[in-house]
This record gives sequence, C-alpha cells and structure tokens, in this order.
Amino acid sequence: MAKPIIGIMGPGENARPEENEMAFALGKAIAQEGWIILTGGRSFGIMEAAMKGAHEANGLTIGVLPTENAANSSADADIKIITGMGSGRNIINVLSSHILVVIGMAAGTASEVALAIKSNKKVILLHQDEITIRFFKNLGTYKVMIANTIEETLQIIKDYLRVTPFSPRPSSAMNELEG
Amino acid sequence: MAKPIIGIMGPGENARPEENEMAFALGKAIAQEGWIILTGGRSFGIMEAAMKGAHEANGLTIGVLPTENAANSSADADIKIITGMGSGRNIINVLSSHILVVIGMAAGTASEVALAIKSNKKVILLHQDEITIRFFKNLGTYKVMIANTIEETLQIIKDYLRVTPFSPRPSSAMNELEG
Amino acid sequence: MAKPIIGIMGPGENARPEENEMAFALGKAIAQEGWIILTGGRSFGIMEAAMKGAHEANGLTIGVLPTENAANSSADADIKIITGMGSGRNIINVLSSHILVVIGMAAGTASEVALAIKSNKKVILLHQDEITIRFFKNLGTYKVMIANTIEETLQIIKDYLRVTPFSPRPSSAMNELEG
Amino acid sequence: MAKPIIGIMGPGENARPEENEMAFALGKAIAQEGWIILTGGRSFGIMEAAMKGAHEANGLTIGVLPTENAANSSADADIKIITGMGSGRNIINVLSSHILVVIGMAAGTASEVALAIKSNKKVILLHQDEITIRFFKNLGTYKVMIANTIEETLQIIKDYLRVTPFSPRPSSAMNELEG
Repeated sequence: MAKPIIGIMGPGENARPEENEMAFALGKAIAQEGWIILTGGRSFGIMEAAMKGAHEANGLTIGVLPTENAANSSADADIKIITGMGSGRNIINVLSSHILVVIGMAAGTASEVALAIKSNKKVILLHQDEITIRFFKNLGTYKVMIANTIEETLQIIKDYLRVTPFSPRPSSAMNELEG
Repeated sequence: MAKPIIGIMGPGENARPEENEMAFALGKAIAQEGWIILTGGRSFGIMEAAMKGAHEANGLTIGVLPTENAANSSADADIKIITGMGSGRNIINVLSSHILVVIGMAAGTASEVALAIKSNKKVILLHQDEITIRFFKNLGTYKVMIANTIEETLQIIKDYLRVTPFSPRPSSAMNELEG
Repeated sequence: MAKPIIGIMGPGENARPEENEMAFALGKAIAQEGWIILTGGRSFGIMEAAMKGAHEANGLTIGVLPTENAANSSADADIKIITGMGSGRNIINVLSSHILVVIGMAAGTASEVALAIKSNKKVILLHQDEITIRFFKNLGTYKVMIANTIEETLQIIKDYLRVTPFSPRPSSAMNELEG
Repeated sequence: MAKPIIGIMGPGENARPEENEMAFALGKAIAQEGWIILTGGRSFGIMEAAMKGAHEANGLTIGVLPTENAANSSADADIKIITGMGSGRNIINVLSSHILVVIGMAAGTASEVALAIKSNKKVILLHQDEITIRFFKNLGTYKVMIANTIEETLQIIKDYLRVTPFSPRPSSAMNELEG
C-alpha cells in the first residue's frame, strides 16, 4: 500500500514556541502511524519542528522548497523537492498532500489553506482562533475541519484515510520506510 | 512613463450580481485613469466584469490564465498570459500587479490576498465583511487597506502610486494604450 | 481583433552582436506589422534588443520575468509579467506566444524551443546552424520552421496567422496599441 | 547521510522497447546502489520502466507529476509530487535531482536536458546519437557527459558523488529506505 502523505503547514521564522512544540509532537505522532510528512522544507518554525518530530519516530520527511537550491533548507528534510518557484510552490505542497494540518498562521500558511479549499483538499485547523476558523469555514465548510489536540487531529486523519482509497503498489519497499 | 498595473481579484462562477456590478464600475474607473487592469482572465465573475468595464473606457486588460490554452478565457482579456499552472498562477497575478483590489471572496481569491501580503504587496479589500477584514489585518496590518466605495479605492491607489516610483521607458507607445 | 503575440527568444548576456542586431531588426519589423512582442523581459541580449527594436516602431512589448520583482528587467518591457519562478517561467513564454522566433542559442533558449515543440507551438529557427536545425527537426518536424532572413520570418508568420483564427474582442482599444 | 536523488528522464508514450529495457536496468542498478530515483511519474515509457526497475531492487521512487491529481500516474511512483503545472514541472525534475541521466529523446526530455545545463546540473546522455550529443555539448560542454552503458553511467555518477558533498541528517531513517 502507498503511504499517506500528511502536509503540515505553518509559519517559518515567526512561529511561536508553543506552536513549534505542537508541530514537533504532531510530526512524531504522524511518523508513529507510518505516514509520510510533507512540509515547506525550510529550516525554521513549523516546517523544521514537524520534521524533527518525525525523525524522533524514525519517519520519512519531504520538504518542498521555494528556493532554487538546497541552501537554507532543513537538514531534517529527507527528500528535498527543489522548485525555484518561491511562493508558487505552495500549490505543490497542497496538491501533494493527501490531507493537511495547519499549526499557527501567517500569510504563506493562509495561502495554503485557501489553495487546499480551492483544490478540494481536506484541511485540519489545529488550535486556531475564532476569526481564522470562521473565515475559512465561510470559504469551504466541508473541507475545513477543526481540532484542538494532537489526538483529535490523528482521529480526523484516520477517519479520512479509512474512506479514501490509495492505489496499491507492487513492491514492499514502502513498508520499510517507517524504519 | 510605465503604466501602473492594477490587479482586480475576486470569485469566478460564484460572484454575486452586485459584486460583478462593482467590478464593472471599478474596471471602468481604473481604465479612465489610464491604468492597465490585470485579472485571472477567465470568462466569469469579477475577472470578466472588471475587464468588460475597462473596455467601456477603452482600457487595456491582461488576463493571466490557469489553463494551458486560451479556451474558456474571456474575450475581454486583450493580452492573454497562458501559464498552464492552475492555481499556481495566482502568485503571478499578485507579483505582476503594482497594487491589488479584491471584490467578493472565494478560496482562490483568499489565496491571492494571502500571497499579496506574503509578497509585500498592498491589497485593498473592497466592501468586505468584518471577518475577512479582521483575518487579513491579523496577517499583515500595513499591507491591507479597506475601502467601501469605488471612490475610496481610487483614492488609495492614487495615494499609493504617488509615493511609488515606476521606471521610465524610452518610447511613447504606452501613452497611446489608453485609447 | 486580438493582436497576435510573437515570442522572440534567444540568449541573454551571451548573445553575439550580430544576433542582437538581427533581434532589433526583427522586433522593429514585427511592431510595424502591428503585432505584440513577448520576450523573457531581462535587460540583456536578444530580449532587450528585440524590445528596443519594437519601440523604434512604437510597438507594444511584454516581458515575462523569471525574478520575483522588476529589478534587472528591461526598461523596454512595457508590460512586465513577474513570475518569481526562475526558468519555470519558460513554459509561460511559450504558451503565451502564438508563434515563436528563435535567434541565437543558449541552454534556456533551447528549453523554450523544446517546450514549444512539446506544446504544439510553431517555432521559427532564424539563422541557426545545421546541428541545431537537425536536432529540433528530429523532435518535431512539422512544428519547426527554418528562416534565414527577417523577410522569410515575417512571411512564415503571416502564412501562419492567415490560417489561425484569433478570437474577436469587443472594444477597439487593441487597434490603438500599435501607436 | 542524505541519499542522492538520481533523475532519470526520457520519452513517455513514444519510448522504444530497447530504451525502456535500458531504463529498467538502470533503475534497478541505481536502486542497488541505495540511491533514490526521480522521474516525471507518468505511467509510460522511461519514467515507468525506470521506477519498475528500481522496485526490482526494492528502491525508493519519486514521481513529479504534471497533472493536478494522481490520475494516470505510475503505480511505481512511491512518492507522488503533484504540481498541476504541466511542462512547468520540468524545472522541478531538474533542480530536485543531484545528477540526471537521459535515455531516449523527445521534446519534453530535451527541455529537461537544456534546463539542466541552464541550472548548472550535470546530465549524462546515455546511448544518444551524434546530433544530440553535439547539440547539447555546444550548449554546455562541462555539464554534459556521455555514456553508452549502464556501467559507464554508474561510474560517472559515483565519480560525481565522490566530489559532491551532501548535507548530513540527524536520524537514521534514510539508511533504511534502501530495503
């Protein structure tokens, strides 16, 4: 079976300490489920924290970088997809994730939530404020889900994956990605 | 002098009649100032209405299309930039506009406002609701401006252009673009 | 009627003097026909020379820039489409041109010829060497045309435009773009 | 240590049987070295053959898709990067690969070789004809390498990786990707 790819999106330099802690815990929990983590790949904030957490549980991480080389990318991105497209890469983050989780909020992050709704992707707003929730719920009620804890987030992802088929693949290599 | 390019962003198929009317009036008013109008170029909603308005005043319009050919593009887009990049083209709308005006709201539109803030572009929210204003003000207070009428919108653009230099160009061709 | 957009592609910094002269003459000749010129928009080589030539005949020029702002763009690009996508913008040059002319050769230019063939666009190789012609003819015989002079190039474009319909547009603004 | 990503590029639907066989053998040989394989991800030609070969040796494969969803992607792409950017994704194939190998030739493939040269990436032309070799050598002598067998290709990659540093990574997860 193909491994699900869970996008974790959030602020870079301006992420708050408690948001980074939550991203680390979420990354670890997702890796423990055997899922792959996809982030924006930079060496800051939610991106780096989520990938570091995943590595605590020996998970696999993908970083989709805005830059045209790997400079300033996170050492915790196992697979670096280098786009050279700046914020033009945000749509790739969205389309390549089976489902997205958002921790914290910044302009780039907001564009990813909006693009997820536009692209009919499910997006989980984790521990977000009332204004953010109401704004995005207005844009796409059924695509936006709300969670306040890591446990609730995992449960939403599991419920989603249960009803969403992934294409089988011939070899067993992916089963060994979990480490 | 180079002509300013004013981005007008908003919903496509789901734009409300009164939003389309406002987009038409804004497109016409902007064309009367001699400015170029840039939209997403599709034959729907705010995009088409703004370009139709511009043509009432013999203005020049640019449509930056998500598709890989001109099918389903608006006949009112004088210059069609064909990207084949889907919503990946939204960043191009933002970066190519000197300043943006947003009428109505949808997921794609929200991604453009967010990308504008991320890219340090000024964006005018025209006749938006309280939730939308508060959400985007939280993301970038100084980049988000509020207007409720066409007149206020034009005044904000004029104030912005007064303090923003455009590079001169050698020939006089652009002076004749206004028609 | 919509104005045809003619893409002129070629090397930047490494263009030879005689290639720049040919690009200048071609840009002028195309503008005299009332067609719009599209280039990569940078302040070097074929791009700048073609747009300068167009301005000699009061033509309209579009520059599709790889950068995320207008720094280092040519002052001769009337309309600057800013992509922030590096060489990822090459496909936009190709798709947005009704037909392309190539003067000189470099790696970025070669990618545009190849993408034109891939995208079923006609591309005119102007004054190219035998190896270049044979290589691209092998990739797409019917999409690659050969010219050795400005006059031959114009004739090929005219023949092409005669059989290719452009969508009509409602206002008369474009008729005045020629200056 | 980070695993090298080797791009394998070539025609899709129009690949010749002997080219597909070579791609299969190359994919297997690369996977046996513990390297990751990156292709355009579609269920045709060189892309699919190389990834099938990699799976014979339990390797990890990345497919960077032009489409906006996974429809028509290869079941042999373990990690699907979904761009929705059509041929605009070719630059991502190039930038994300540490080194590229090209089998067969078509327009899209040629654009990738050209973009590799433009982006200062090393590209190995495997079993290519004289015209192709001379054309690309003219564009970038030192970036284009020639091989006629799988063994020569592997040797060039090894020589290249020996002198090219990869950033270390903290966890041991990647060591287990080889299966």
